[in-house]
Amino acid sequence: MPELRKDPIVGRWVIISTERGKRPSDFSGTLKRKTESKLCPFCPGNESATPPEILAFRPNSSEPNRPGWTLRVISNKYPALRIEGDLNREGVGIFDKMNGVGAHEVIIETPEHEKDLVDISPKQMEDVIWAYLNRCIDLKKDRRFRYILIFKNQGEAAGASLEHSHSQLIATPIVPKRVIEEIEGAGKYYGYKERCVFCDMVKQEIADNERVVIKNSSYISFEPFAPRFPFETWILPIKHSPAFEDTKKEDIPLLASILQETLKRLAKALNNPPYNYILHTSPIDGYATQEYHWHIEIMPKLTRVAGFEWGTGFYINPTTPEDAANYLKEIEISTPDKIPSLKS
Amino acid sequence: MPELRKDPIVGRWVIISTERGKRPSDFSGTLKRKTESKLCPFCPGNESATPPEILAFRPNSSEPNRPGWTLRVISNKYPALRIEGDLNREGVGIFDKMNGVGAHEVIIETPEHEKDLVDISPKQMEDVIWAYLNRCIDLKKDRRFRYILIFKNQGEAAGASLEHSHSQLIATPIVPKRVIEEIEGAGKYYGYKERCVFCDMVKQEIADNERVVIKNSSYISFEPFAPRFPFETWILPIKHSPAFEDTKKEDIPLLASILQETLKRLAKALNNPPYNYILHTSPIDGYATQEYHWHIEIMPKLTRVAGFEWGTGFYINPTTPEDAANYLKEIEISTPDKIPSLKS
Repeated sequence: MPELRKDPIVGRWVIISTERGKRPSDFSGTLKRKTESKLCPFCPGNESATPPEILAFRPNSSEPNRPGWTLRVISNKYPALRIEGDLNREGVGIFDKMNGVGAHEVIIETPEHEKDLVDISPKQMEDVIWAYLNRCIDLKKDRRFRYILIFKNQGEAAGASLEHSHSQLIATPIVPKRVIEEIEGAGKYYGYKERCVFCDMVKQEIADNERVVIKNSSYISFEPFAPRFPFETWILPIKHSPAFEDTKKEDIPLLASILQETLKRLAKALNNPPYNYILHTSPIDGYATQEYHWHIEIMPKLTRVAGFEWGTGFYINPTTPEDAANYLKEIEISTPDKIPSLKS
Repeated sequence: MPELRKDPIVGRWVIISTERGKRPSDFSGTLKRKTESKLCPFCPGNESATPPEILAFRPNSSEPNRPGWTLRVISNKYPALRIEGDLNREGVGIFDKMNGVGAHEVIIETPEHEKDLVDISPKQMEDVIWAYLNRCIDLKKDRRFRYILIFKNQGEAAGASLEHSHSQLIATPIVPKRVIEEIEGAGKYYGYKERCVFCDMVKQEIADNERVVIKNSSYISFEPFAPRFPFETWILPIKHSPAFEDTKKEDIPLLASILQETLKRLAKALNNPPYNYILHTSPIDGYATQEYHWHIEIMPKLTRVAGFEWGTGFYINPTTPEDAANYLKEIEISTPDKIPSLKS
């Protein structure tokens, strides 16, 4: 019997329909392996093919916009939003429009064309988190922006247009609809219970121990109760933390390690699937501090969103999160020794 | 300069970013052409491979579940929802779940394996609309259902698992989130203006005449002001009509013809793209009669939904609806003479 499940945050119902069920091996990994790096604008030596760098980690203090970097942040050459100008909201008859003001940046996570996030060193993964934090803190100063979204598209089927591993960041002049839905949903829960729904979810996941993938002393990685997609995986700080950019220095290695280990498990279980991840944090003006809790949502691209999903906003998911968590927990991967990963 | 546009119904913001702009020829049609019909469960002669028929049009009064039909409706063999049982809502700690009760039917639109909706005769297209209406009216009698969604996935990339042309219908025990969002958005507009937002939209589209594709005496086909996807096209009754199932007999040929002609224009302009369409109508219990207006949303599958869309609920659309409407209007297609299509 299929089961409907409700996401407690935005109120989204999900159909868990195991009769259509798939094991990970039924999903084909469609990620193209890397080929050409000569013409890649994200490769060292081709810095002039991109806009000038906003931030770069250069261990040997090499010159900006030259090789020698280990991580590089640039403006998107084809931005969805532009940094210049004002919002200019206006009406067009019954319709409304405004200018596309915002920031759109690219975080080039490694100089090595053929490496993905699962291949880089723990130190490089920490640098990726450092770069996310650095850019958030800097962009918060621009008074026009109300939200900063960090996201990653890995693989062509997940919307990546360049194969060299990179994340993106968008700063927007309005709080996105999806974030408002989460804050409103979490706010209703808070209004009734006076507790953060994300904190309660983490507590229940730890107690049930049915959907946890891995955890360490500060973070947990689990399959949500009502996932939209097979192997959808969330990472949250265990303690209440509204804003990502308030992450403490000592937690960065733990966050880098849980994110990388979760990605490694997904890559191994699903044969390098294309995926998206997004980082949801509080809006810049700092409201929703009691009820909101920042998190990462990882969404492997294994199924197609079709008419039913578009028409209803419901998602049909052929894999239970309990099964997915089991697969991911049992996968053998190589992990560095230095950070203890307390498998639940 | 990219432009943000707000859908007046659900409040969804869309980024119109023409610098990433694409002409229709840049989008590759990825629809696989039809091959095997011997093993197709939807082909005449293979009726026993499907659940028994719920409805069939048999011009020569042939026996049920045998060849001789021109259109056939069956239960989905792998239903997302099941017709038996009760809802049984219950809590699991802080989470909520309920049984997946509902109906999930398949409308096989033609016996001919190699034909799509753009290839069938006007009479067959009318039969498709008749079948939609018939099933809606029948399923409304089941008191457990609160909503009926008709939708179509055409082409593998749009989620079609069988290539023989078919639509689907799902009856759900709760009103879907996307429909509630539309009704709430339309309700806010009605509360302020005391007019239906869809009616106002149709009036403005006719007056502006910038985004209209085609219209006839009862229906209009246009690109919405804030489309999520390139060449997203909506079809609405011109007069206020909350519920699809109240469509008058004399309007059926007009609806069949505008839907088929719109699909033909999209197929020709975009080289047979994969697409989804959905039909949004009022919930079964008939609320929202003043503010809601049924409609079809056609969404060609030309771009990928990626991290940005998942994270924000905003969509990045590389084609303006004005450009898309122009392409579609100018395309030469063959249309039957008998139904006058008043090009706007």
